[in-house]
Amino acid sequence: MALFGAMTVFTKGTIAVIFCARRTDADDSGYADAADRMEKLAALQSGYRGIDHARNADGSGITISYWATDDDAKAWRDNPEHAAIRETGRGKWYSSYSLHVARVERSYDWEK
Amino acid sequence: MALFGAMTVFTKGTIAVIFCARRTDADDSGYADAADRMEKLAALQSGYRGIDHARNADGSGITISYWATDDDAKAWRDNPEHAAIRETGRGKWYSSYSLHVARVERSYDWEK
Repeated sequence: MALFGAMTVFTKGTIAVIFCARRTDADDSGYADAADRMEKLAALQSGYRGIDHARNADGSGITISYWATDDDAKAWRDNPEHAAIRETGRGKWYSSYSLHVARVERSYDWEK
Repeated sequence: MALFGAMTVFTKGTIAVIFCARRTDADDSGYADAADRMEKLAALQSGYRGIDHARNADGSGITISYWATDDDAKAWRDNPEHAAIRETGRGKWYSSYSLHVARVERSYDWEK
């Protein structure tokens, strides 16, 4: 999985979909495969701007996908394969999650 | 450090400050102490709504702090102790980072 695929400056209005999840212990390899597949699938969607991802040793993690418009973010939400994987996630991989859809106001980056 | 301190539903307009950073190898314990101190200090600021944090094995990580208003987020940015630690971070701990200030449009959570 390409961690920190985005790590860039976004234009105002870019949509950030913030997904914070706690994992169960179940089916770790199935989860990793699905995460990898979802990242590849998202990158094919219209308006895709990147993904940043980080995961703690306890399995909890944050995935942020970035989209040109809110309609693009909704189209990704409604992608049938993504929706099916989400159902699998609720059944097997996640114990809880929160999801925030937010609109970028300001964006910066810095490099040593 | 209290990982996933937020993990909740936010009202529309809540400000999410998304900080994605790559680490150097330097001064790991100093970094951990500073991160812990910053989380405690943020929680004392007006308008603080929580922090979610995840960190990969390679040291890259995402920290999202949530604020009632953009002025609250800016006051945290301008907190003198926070500003000083940020300078230390640029000197020692970070090799690169991106920072996005975004306004929450929709927010959900789910629990098994």
